[in-house]
Amino acid sequence: MKKFDLIAIGRAAVDLNAVEYNRPMEETKTFAKYVGGSPANIAIGSARLGQKVGFIGKIADDQLGNYVKLYMKEAGIDTSNLVVDKDGHKTGLTFTEILSPTECDILMYRDQVADLYLTSDEINGEYISQANMLVISGTGLAQSPSREAIIKSMFLAKKLGVKVVFELDYRPYTWKNAEETSIYYKIIANHADVIIGTRDEYDVLENGIGNTNDETVAELFKHDAQLIVIKVGSKGSYAYTKEGKIYRGYAYETKVLKSFGAGDSFAAAFLYAYSKNLGIETALKFGGASASIVISKLSSSDAMPTVEEIENFLKTAKIKEVE
Amino acid sequence: MKKFDLIAIGRAAVDLNAVEYNRPMEETKTFAKYVGGSPANIAIGSARLGQKVGFIGKIADDQLGNYVKLYMKEAGIDTSNLVVDKDGHKTGLTFTEILSPTECDILMYRDQVADLYLTSDEINGEYISQANMLVISGTGLAQSPSREAIIKSMFLAKKLGVKVVFELDYRPYTWKNAEETSIYYKIIANHADVIIGTRDEYDVLENGIGNTNDETVAELFKHDAQLIVIKVGSKGSYAYTKEGKIYRGYAYETKVLKSFGAGDSFAAAFLYAYSKNLGIETALKFGGASASIVISKLSSSDAMPTVEEIENFLKTAKIKEVE
Amino acid sequence: MKKFDLIAIGRAAVDLNAVEYNRPMEETKTFAKYVGGSPANIAIGSARLGQKVGFIGKIADDQLGNYVKLYMKEAGIDTSNLVVDKDGHKTGLTFTEILSPTECDILMYRDQVADLYLTSDEINGEYISQANMLVISGTGLAQSPSREAIIKSMFLAKKLGVKVVFELDYRPYTWKNAEETSIYYKIIANHADVIIGTRDEYDVLENGIGNTNDETVAELFKHDAQLIVIKVGSKGSYAYTKEGKIYRGYAYETKVLKSFGAGDSFAAAFLYAYSKNLGIETALKFGGASASIVISKLSSSDAMPTVEEIENFLKTAKIKEVE
Amino acid sequence: MKKFDLIAIGRAAVDLNAVEYNRPMEETKTFAKYVGGSPANIAIGSARLGQKVGFIGKIADDQLGNYVKLYMKEAGIDTSNLVVDKDGHKTGLTFTEILSPTECDILMYRDQVADLYLTSDEINGEYISQANMLVISGTGLAQSPSREAIIKSMFLAKKLGVKVVFELDYRPYTWKNAEETSIYYKIIANHADVIIGTRDEYDVLENGIGNTNDETVAELFKHDAQLIVIKVGSKGSYAYTKEGKIYRGYAYETKVLKSFGAGDSFAAAFLYAYSKNLGIETALKFGGASASIVISKLSSSDAMPTVEEIENFLKTAKIKEVE
Repeated sequence: MKKFDLIAIGRAAVDLNAVEYNRPMEETKTFAKYVGGSPANIAIGSARLGQKVGFIGKIADDQLGNYVKLYMKEAGIDTSNLVVDKDGHKTGLTFTEILSPTECDILMYRDQVADLYLTSDEINGEYISQANMLVISGTGLAQSPSREAIIKSMFLAKKLGVKVVFELDYRPYTWKNAEETSIYYKIIANHADVIIGTRDEYDVLENGIGNTNDETVAELFKHDAQLIVIKVGSKGSYAYTKEGKIYRGYAYETKVLKSFGAGDSFAAAFLYAYSKNLGIETALKFGGASASIVISKLSSSDAMPTVEEIENFLKTAKIKEVE
Repeated sequence: MKKFDLIAIGRAAVDLNAVEYNRPMEETKTFAKYVGGSPANIAIGSARLGQKVGFIGKIADDQLGNYVKLYMKEAGIDTSNLVVDKDGHKTGLTFTEILSPTECDILMYRDQVADLYLTSDEINGEYISQANMLVISGTGLAQSPSREAIIKSMFLAKKLGVKVVFELDYRPYTWKNAEETSIYYKIIANHADVIIGTRDEYDVLENGIGNTNDETVAELFKHDAQLIVIKVGSKGSYAYTKEGKIYRGYAYETKVLKSFGAGDSFAAAFLYAYSKNLGIETALKFGGASASIVISKLSSSDAMPTVEEIENFLKTAKIKEVE
Repeated sequence: MKKFDLIAIGRAAVDLNAVEYNRPMEETKTFAKYVGGSPANIAIGSARLGQKVGFIGKIADDQLGNYVKLYMKEAGIDTSNLVVDKDGHKTGLTFTEILSPTECDILMYRDQVADLYLTSDEINGEYISQANMLVISGTGLAQSPSREAIIKSMFLAKKLGVKVVFELDYRPYTWKNAEETSIYYKIIANHADVIIGTRDEYDVLENGIGNTNDETVAELFKHDAQLIVIKVGSKGSYAYTKEGKIYRGYAYETKVLKSFGAGDSFAAAFLYAYSKNLGIETALKFGGASASIVISKLSSSDAMPTVEEIENFLKTAKIKEVE
Repeated sequence: MKKFDLIAIGRAAVDLNAVEYNRPMEETKTFAKYVGGSPANIAIGSARLGQKVGFIGKIADDQLGNYVKLYMKEAGIDTSNLVVDKDGHKTGLTFTEILSPTECDILMYRDQVADLYLTSDEINGEYISQANMLVISGTGLAQSPSREAIIKSMFLAKKLGVKVVFELDYRPYTWKNAEETSIYYKIIANHADVIIGTRDEYDVLENGIGNTNDETVAELFKHDAQLIVIKVGSKGSYAYTKEGKIYRGYAYETKVLKSFGAGDSFAAAFLYAYSKNLGIETALKFGGASASIVISKLSSSDAMPTVEEIENFLKTAKIKEVE
């Protein structure tokens, strides 16, 4: 048995969430500090679900970097491969603005952030070999040298027989243009065993050619992919297997506070059930439930549910009707 | 009579002050948002004192940039020359950490910040000509193109007969090295009519050659300077005139909450009294009182006192004994 | 039948060859101007051999850029996809120094050169589809945006059924470090149908792990490669097919003037024979003969031989004895 | 008596002059290598005239850098402060194209060139103190860190009582925009004792406001300037002294081969006569004669005349008639 159920790689950053919500950021007086960043959220969510989790990333050599590391450690994540930046790069920041449950906006500080300065010589094959899965988040590909570090981690995982999970996690901020994103997404997608993303993110991967889900999965299954999940927002999600099976997942009724964090909580719970061989149908249910729980709370990372919370939620959950 | 008593030029940014103080930033849960940045603080402090104030700067095209502009406008400052950045640069951020009244630390986000992208063609001679004084803050010289914009504003002010006030405001973060700072500080100092700074900042200007106050002022008075203020922390301050007079100012007893904002509040109050021809002795008193008031409060900009507050403070103020 | 036997992609630059040789560059008085750059040389060599050739690249908008385009046009190459740079980038330069036949050195100008500014939106799938082969030269991967343009051209060629030939062409100058090179070489090598390089270049691809030829080809044949050529300098070369056949090529006796241009002339002649289905043995002979001819002459591009010259050379050629 | 009549500071680079002239560069087959760069040319010209000359600059750590140093050393220039770059920067290159005597063009390689990487801590006050004059060439101000190194050398020269000569030498290539040039030119011009430039270059200094010569000198004499030379091409030149005297210089008839090098040879010969107290009239004559000699020859640096050549030339020289 391997030491880690999964290792996530990429950014671990700080969210500054408006304490007073339902107002524009200009009028927000105070912000609450949380750990954020898609792969960090997935790692925290996975640990909350009882998975054994490692993390590969880079943090700033300052108080906010310390905070990120401490929080992850306390969440039970192995932080031995969370490198401290020595070149003055900063912690990525995301200010969130919650105007209303459906109108949310974010303001990101992503210039010269530590996570994008992870270098390929900081990637340790020995560490990756101890995991069942390597979870790659797309944003880490946005800039060098993090880009090369992540491509290297993928090549190593493939060589070492570690399953590669690609969470598309598309954030336009740090990319030069959409075509560049498409090129790097394709490099990882061609080698990934499991791919998870929203329909919009698959459009980015395909550089906006307008494929249907069927065309998308047909193209990707030509390469290494075994399982592909396409999320379609409040309409739920679809999982496709290379053998040709299709599974449908649903979104659940919930009291939405904000839209952030849904994707990361979905991924953590989906991968939990998938790791435990609970079946793809259950994995989609867990993913949907976990997302519904997180969007009803103020934070993303801090609100990640336990298995018990998900199971309790599902006992009474009502599938969301979509017109 | 001119439209503005003074125009300040340089950064207008955001401070995020720890709401829970006397603890490390790692344990701080929430941060309160204020306008910050030395020249912005001086402008706000001057407006609070009833001065007619203009501002030349550049703000981010986002919610935090809007907030800065709104706050300054409401403070009574003319923001017609506060340019909105169109290239995606962000608002500078300063997280403050208050471990104890004497141990304060800050964490600055100054990469790719809008204020350092003010360009020389955004400097308007017509606008500068409407002021009695142009207040230049040293940090704006740290990077191009703001560096050139500020040197241009200085040349224009000299040509137009507008008094140039140079507040040294040295922040090591964005400078490449100390010698570079010294070179650009000298360019402005050689043309400035009034220079204000701490003894440490004059050492930076002189590239650490170890001059005494007397040597420093002797060298600077060879050029355009008429009045030089050297602050020596809790020991107070000295003002030197080209004619050879020396004035002594004192620090006052106060319940210190944090050390930030002392310099900006000093400058605003000193320049107020100097503008109103209340005499240099009074100017030093006003500066000292204003600083003492601000360091007893949580914010810098928001805490800037009125004339009435300063006068009331001085009625009962006790000069701080220095061993 | 397709319009082009091959399209090469990458740099087209200028060589400045010492007119007075057998002396250090310091004492060289005059330099002769030639077109240079590995893929340009391969294109010129291929055209000289009667192949129908296209080229994808970017040239400076100045006299040296014009010269490159004119020379290639006159050599019979289609230059419709040779884009003119509009951002002030310059033509790459290579000064050659010929101290003696065995001691040659080069001095490269590769900062801000036009060829590395080819962008992915300048890559035209319609154009690539008209070729039997796309010849990718490794140096084009050294920097963005040329890097992404070339990866895109590779993805397009694969999708369109155009054979991808990867000439490793490793030049340390523009790469950040060897590991970065290895990562991008692997991305192309995993998809290439034909790979050509020296043993040293395969070591770069493998990030210096010290594989033997057998280990190298075993690893590469796990992916798309069908044919792999490994050159071992004056000892000749080996060609491996996916089916497991191994062919040996030899170097020939010649009066060596300088060592430059051997690899490009080898590739042009090898690919000519391979295109014409003359058999791999003949292809290796043609490659070796072409290289021997070019290293006996002053220029690289200008000296590229015709089929007749190669055939005549081979009639009397003596295999070089290697102790 | 000081060790050096003058020390020049700034770029020392390589010119590649078309050997076959009266044709476009595309058709030029060979280029001859010479030392170039305005301050290097002035230093070489001064040494040829028997002046004791020092040089402060930075050269590439390669064959072309070596060549520059060797050539200057052999010309009799002290190269102890010619620093060798250790960061891979290259020697600046200027390809010249001589279409006809009046149509000349140049193609410059100025990206990442060693001379612009001279740093302020490589400036040695002790060395500067050994000279009567420090000759600053405007192009060195175009980029950091050379910009700061040169401003520092100017501050040091002023402090040490060394005369500052400012040769405007405006080359648009490396400057971001004309306003930036104007700002840095003003910083030096306000402190320079002697200023030399063409009317076009004074327009750049004044940011194109359209001053007449009289307005230009009136403005500059408000600061440290004692002597100002304004060149007006084939119409000759004017020298203005702070005391109000105006001198007229003339161009001489010559068989023009190309227009390059005229300014540098003028400066060298003018400063020679000025150093030797031969009077400003003679200085203008020497300058004009030296320029006329150089433009009749292929190179700039190599063609710099001796005093004897200038005196011989002047014996028979005819002033050029200007319609």
